[in-house]
Amino acid sequence: MKVAIDTMGGDYAPGEIVLGALQAAKEYEAEGMEIVLVGDQAQITQALDSHGNWKDLNITVHHAGEIIDMHESPGSAVRKKKDASVVVATALVKQGICDVVISAGSTGAAVAAALFGLGRINGIERPAIATPMPNLTGTTVLLDSGANIDSKPKHLVQNAIMGSIYAEYVLNIPKPRVGLLNIGEEESKGNEQVLSTYPLLQQLNTVNFIGNVEGRDIPKGTVDVVVCDGFVGNIVLKFGEGLASAILQLVKDAIKSSGFWAKMASMLVLPALRGLKKKLDYAEYGGAPLLGVNGGFIICHGSSRAIAIKNAIRVAKEFTEQDVVAHIRENIAKEGVVTNE
Amino acid sequence: MKVAIDTMGGDYAPGEIVLGALQAAKEYEAEGMEIVLVGDQAQITQALDSHGNWKDLNITVHHAGEIIDMHESPGSAVRKKKDASVVVATALVKQGICDVVISAGSTGAAVAAALFGLGRINGIERPAIATPMPNLTGTTVLLDSGANIDSKPKHLVQNAIMGSIYAEYVLNIPKPRVGLLNIGEEESKGNEQVLSTYPLLQQLNTVNFIGNVEGRDIPKGTVDVVVCDGFVGNIVLKFGEGLASAILQLVKDAIKSSGFWAKMASMLVLPALRGLKKKLDYAEYGGAPLLGVNGGFIICHGSSRAIAIKNAIRVAKEFTEQDVVAHIRENIAKEGVVTNE
Repeated sequence: MKVAIDTMGGDYAPGEIVLGALQAAKEYEAEGMEIVLVGDQAQITQALDSHGNWKDLNITVHHAGEIIDMHESPGSAVRKKKDASVVVATALVKQGICDVVISAGSTGAAVAAALFGLGRINGIERPAIATPMPNLTGTTVLLDSGANIDSKPKHLVQNAIMGSIYAEYVLNIPKPRVGLLNIGEEESKGNEQVLSTYPLLQQLNTVNFIGNVEGRDIPKGTVDVVVCDGFVGNIVLKFGEGLASAILQLVKDAIKSSGFWAKMASMLVLPALRGLKKKLDYAEYGGAPLLGVNGGFIICHGSSRAIAIKNAIRVAKEFTEQDVVAHIRENIAKEGVVTNE
Repeated sequence: MKVAIDTMGGDYAPGEIVLGALQAAKEYEAEGMEIVLVGDQAQITQALDSHGNWKDLNITVHHAGEIIDMHESPGSAVRKKKDASVVVATALVKQGICDVVISAGSTGAAVAAALFGLGRINGIERPAIATPMPNLTGTTVLLDSGANIDSKPKHLVQNAIMGSIYAEYVLNIPKPRVGLLNIGEEESKGNEQVLSTYPLLQQLNTVNFIGNVEGRDIPKGTVDVVVCDGFVGNIVLKFGEGLASAILQLVKDAIKSSGFWAKMASMLVLPALRGLKKKLDYAEYGGAPLLGVNGGFIICHGSSRAIAIKNAIRVAKEFTEQDVVAHIRENIAKEGVVTNE
């Protein structure tokens, strides 16, 4: 399989993107992984060369002369800059040359490039970003986490179908529990959007809908797929990132300010804390798939470093091998009636 | 000052409510605090007696024969059960006998009792729950955190005015920074609700509006008052509670499973962790005021134990002494034009 990487997107591009790609190329060499680095040829080659001999690895460079800035309007930038790295990478998938795209650039531009370049799966009106979040016992997928806002109930229904497939095939959760994010468990609770969505979710055949879930159910791990509007999902996601990082900072401060012996003790405890930080680190999860477009598209955090890119390549591999797009097509077709509401 | 406590509301009522009231009565005795315990006289007296002699404290019992259950429809329950403890406690404030109500019962019933019993402040259409959340450097107030959903822009504007007053007078933050919770900092980002709210907030004279804030700004402490719809606020609040508790559990597990010496070390470090838990514990903040009604009304977490009730009484005291209601009336009148949109 062949992965196209938007090498110019992200806070640490192209250096860290190239490094992550090199690590993945080595790790998955035996499995026939090919990596195509899309972007400014001179910069990418220089970055590759700085890490020693890479010519034996399955890495090629595909030149693209433009970059989409974080502050550009995504839609018009994607339309105008036909030679932008994210646009060219997407085109490689559209043409069947690559299987899946990875981008750590502007999320808006990535979504726009995927929509224009790959198109939507039949029956899907709005693709959704499915972000895996760590919980006490495993992983919960949150979708949509920022691709769409002011979603209609039918869009949340489509999210439920797609999220369930992702959890089942990529996270290996059989019969994933799908919940609707709400302010209470009762069916009668919630805003107009979720009140109208609830009965539609109950009618689904391919989804194990367990009803409404609350914010606290995400870290507890009592639900595998959480369906919500992208406005709520994005706020929850960024709040969670900030809170986890703040708490770990407080833990370190608390240990360090607690006297001589505790300070000595902390030398022994800090490795455990580092392990915990890794568990909570979104980089470990390596990016979130954009579900609902005709092809694989993995969106990474803008601040992704090499490790996140390497893990995103692992996610891209699983996404492709499990043929998530085909499963979505299949189940959306099965559920056809409900999504027409 | 005189506090009316709905002694029958909450998971640990009446026992823990009574215990918290006893502790506060002792602590604030010199300052002339009087506490009225509203609810089943026999049960409350029995709970009081079990803690020894309370007759010298400034505590009285006011009988109320009914209780509103967590699963009742709040509006109709408040209308029908005129002798419910939360309704009677609210009436004591309406009649000028008490200054402020405290309830750990159903939030919906508390909001309904406050609306029917006290009425809204002129110019406020929907009261909001203002929840203090700990951040890295202090406290951020989140409102609305669950009283209202599907809010209109004007309701969010009213929240901004009220939240700013609460942060200034009760949390002692001069010129509090007020932010609109959104998925990006740019003015052009967001759903219809926040896009329409942004320009209205810019026009306010009594509010230091700093623009859009993201989920991560709450724990960072870069904003003092966060304005949002109650649907979003409630989800964020419960997610934060769950995440903080999950992370502290993971920290403990990580320490405990990290070998003999680390285990020994943890004996020294755990006290620091307990201090941290206290810092993050919402019970320490003692309840969230319902802002926008004609009187003081402090809503506590359903799982409040004595310490939370005691702290809620402290909040009630500050709320009353600072005359938050009068300040809200004043600023709402000053801003009159904007809220009519």
